[in-house]
Amino acid sequence: MKLKVKVIDIENKGALLHVSDAKTIRVRDGDRVQVINEVTGDVAQAHVDTTGSLIEPGTVGIYRPLNARLCLLEGAEVVVRGADRPLSLTYVKKKMDGGRLTKDETAKIIQDIVEDNLSPGEITAFITASYINGLDMNEVEHLTRAMVDTGERLQFATRPIVDKHSIGGVPGNKITLLIAPIIAASGLKIPKTSSRAITGAGGTADLMEVLAPVGFTAREVQQMTEKVGGCIVWGGATNIAPADDRIIMYEYPLKIDARGQMIASVMAKKMAVGANLVVIDIPVGRLTKIPDVQEGRKLAREFIDLGERLGMHVQCALSYGESLVGHTIGPNLEVREALAVLEGAKEPNSLIQKSISIAGMALEMAGKAAPGQGARAAEDLLWSGKALEKFRQIIEIQGGDPTVTAADILPGEHQFVVNAPQDGYVIELNNQSLVSLARIAGSPHDHGAGLQIHAKKGSRVRKGDPIFTIHADRSWRLDRAIEEGHRLMPVLVEGMILERFPAERWV
Amino acid sequence: MKLKVKVIDIENKGALLHVSDAKTIRVRDGDRVQVINEVTGDVAQAHVDTTGSLIEPGTVGIYRPLNARLCLLEGAEVVVRGADRPLSLTYVKKKMDGGRLTKDETAKIIQDIVEDNLSPGEITAFITASYINGLDMNEVEHLTRAMVDTGERLQFATRPIVDKHSIGGVPGNKITLLIAPIIAASGLKIPKTSSRAITGAGGTADLMEVLAPVGFTAREVQQMTEKVGGCIVWGGATNIAPADDRIIMYEYPLKIDARGQMIASVMAKKMAVGANLVVIDIPVGRLTKIPDVQEGRKLAREFIDLGERLGMHVQCALSYGESLVGHTIGPNLEVREALAVLEGAKEPNSLIQKSISIAGMALEMAGKAAPGQGARAAEDLLWSGKALEKFRQIIEIQGGDPTVTAADILPGEHQFVVNAPQDGYVIELNNQSLVSLARIAGSPHDHGAGLQIHAKKGSRVRKGDPIFTIHADRSWRLDRAIEEGHRLMPVLVEGMILERFPAERWV
Repeated sequence: MKLKVKVIDIENKGALLHVSDAKTIRVRDGDRVQVINEVTGDVAQAHVDTTGSLIEPGTVGIYRPLNARLCLLEGAEVVVRGADRPLSLTYVKKKMDGGRLTKDETAKIIQDIVEDNLSPGEITAFITASYINGLDMNEVEHLTRAMVDTGERLQFATRPIVDKHSIGGVPGNKITLLIAPIIAASGLKIPKTSSRAITGAGGTADLMEVLAPVGFTAREVQQMTEKVGGCIVWGGATNIAPADDRIIMYEYPLKIDARGQMIASVMAKKMAVGANLVVIDIPVGRLTKIPDVQEGRKLAREFIDLGERLGMHVQCALSYGESLVGHTIGPNLEVREALAVLEGAKEPNSLIQKSISIAGMALEMAGKAAPGQGARAAEDLLWSGKALEKFRQIIEIQGGDPTVTAADILPGEHQFVVNAPQDGYVIELNNQSLVSLARIAGSPHDHGAGLQIHAKKGSRVRKGDPIFTIHADRSWRLDRAIEEGHRLMPVLVEGMILERFPAERWV
Repeated sequence: MKLKVKVIDIENKGALLHVSDAKTIRVRDGDRVQVINEVTGDVAQAHVDTTGSLIEPGTVGIYRPLNARLCLLEGAEVVVRGADRPLSLTYVKKKMDGGRLTKDETAKIIQDIVEDNLSPGEITAFITASYINGLDMNEVEHLTRAMVDTGERLQFATRPIVDKHSIGGVPGNKITLLIAPIIAASGLKIPKTSSRAITGAGGTADLMEVLAPVGFTAREVQQMTEKVGGCIVWGGATNIAPADDRIIMYEYPLKIDARGQMIASVMAKKMAVGANLVVIDIPVGRLTKIPDVQEGRKLAREFIDLGERLGMHVQCALSYGESLVGHTIGPNLEVREALAVLEGAKEPNSLIQKSISIAGMALEMAGKAAPGQGARAAEDLLWSGKALEKFRQIIEIQGGDPTVTAADILPGEHQFVVNAPQDGYVIELNNQSLVSLARIAGSPHDHGAGLQIHAKKGSRVRKGDPIFTIHADRSWRLDRAIEEGHRLMPVLVEGMILERFPAERWV
């Protein structure tokens, strides 16, 4: 039926119908309708809310995200009718029943996800079925290509284009802040899109935001990369592989990270930015996503295999994931630590070695260094100051202050030092608890919040030695972090009593 | 934070926040918040929509379904804060990973479904995981009990209480309109809650609505049953096993009907109405839910086993599901057919035999008939007119006209007769196509719409003999049904040519 448009400023993907109109076209709350702009020919699907009073019969309320797709003016006329069941649901059902999806079936599902033709429940059914029944390498390839095809792509005139990705699971992994400048300083191009923290204390995009804006379009990412050789932006602001963001949104509450989808998600982003040389960092360790080296090798082979299918040269670095990288967790603390290294600091070793190793792999792959000489070449770019100079160009082109130094970046003013309760070795430093503690202190939202670790696993400490410091921008958050710290017990010193009755404070 | 309430007349389970307030409490569109009525202590969860203009900062928009739970007045003050991840998601994840859920874990999931603490995506993840990984009998028992415990229950002072259920898949299955009056006429109590059609051409509730209102509370169902021995109402209007309705809502688009959930769903409703004697009708046939007798027996054993665990005596009838029951599909046509039998018509045999067989099983289980004599006893109640008298009492107590006769109920005035294209036997009568055709003609919404079948499978027809008649309340719907009939081809006469080039019309 034809209805008059009333644009409604609500961030929700649906449309609002008067109950009487909903009855006429035989849809109920939550049902899907097609909304057709007959002037432009644009068609969009939306789920229906109903009201008896907010709008008149004969009117349809178009919520903001829906109107972003239809561009309707107040009072315009649209056709609204019950939508057919999307064909892609048949394919979702096939996956639930253990079937293998073809290229076209996968493409249709991903297209319907991007065009909002599938409901959250339907998207979750696809994710859950893929998680339980798994995706074979053909399906992963189809999924990757479908994710690339439904978003924007960068088109560089020259190659190689380098990219790197860390599959995560290890805190304090600020290596991109070193690797991207080193790669770009070598004359290679690295258009790096990064994520924000979902469950972590700071994604690379959260870190970079301390220094410069990170929200850019795909076109701007390309232009910046062409000008200075690289950038570090937030992928969520581009329209690169947008299906992936939707999928992650529905995976997040379920705390799943299905293998096939994860590989497709990573590789789709690399392919969409035009990368043909890719290094994947796979942290291995009990509390990371990959518990042992065997699993790490298996995953590495899958990345390499998929890369071959997609025309990308992939190498993987299995890295030590049991301990945090560097000594800091949280945006300002991590950025300060990375910037200090670019400025010449010879510590922390774990951060420097990991960064030059991975940057070195890329330099070798691109022929910028002889085999086995990549790390050395990366080190040269680092210690010569060329990487710092390049990083300042990147900061400047993204709109930040290129004169910034490590000393300018301050951790949160509210601090609390946790000391060793007795002499001994630090036998446990629980990454997940450290990250939780940093989040409770306000990270990544409060840039100053986080942890500075003074004694890493294996260190010998004496009673009263500082083990770590909690920083927070707000005093109440610091109080909550201190409170929770007792329960989380992120650090154990050999011989420490785990519990005491009656309970005592942990410090 | 404390916010002022603005009640918003939108049928959507969420709440609306101003973007600035959403930022303050760190939630984004789609995130979950807790809304707390500090006066009553009531707490509800809701997902968040945001707006920059519809409400002022400091205000929270409470949509209608949320306010049905919180009963807030315009301008009242509530506390709104980011909600924790529901604990039940851990159990959903466990099921995704192939684990077996305990009683408490299942109970928590079902409680969170009923209280809207799980999002559509999260509910679908549970459904999908249960569908793919299956539920064992312990889990089915837990699920059944949890569904019963989260809804209302009828509490009859005396036993037995009889109930019956057909698991569906066969069209024209109007037997409840005969069985319920027969059982009640024997002096037994049968508080029958029924469903509306989801994919069919008419559920029992749709049929009964031709004769009387069907929307009653659980308390009214109990009172009517105590007064006249039975009723036939729409289960969706009661608050009996409400979790089941939510689960079905998310199963529907996926076209799944997971075995364990289906059994739990059926038995939860029986248990919640207080039934202790239950007959389950399991239609068996290629196009039903149960393809063969072996599958039917397996399902029957599961129903009986679950009944024992729950203290209910269950018997199952494996019935012939390849052909429709009686000769009609669609509300008015089916009600007319059933009412005619109650009034004394000796046809159709398939309807009469199936009804008295199942009613007879219940009479034997309750000791109202000797073993092997139940069908006979049911027949006596039918032909004596006692069942008709009882049905009129049921119609009357539900607010319908008890003087109604079969002759009063008219099929849709727009008709089209499909004739045999040649001599031969009817070798195929496709149930699914017949149901589709009835729905296209307007059934069950248009009560007069439906099909009257003149020649069932195996009948000998001569060229030009009527095979079936399509009825519709609206002429354009009849036209559409005639149009679609060619494609659906629900009837095949032996020797019929399946396709011709160039194509000819099917009549």
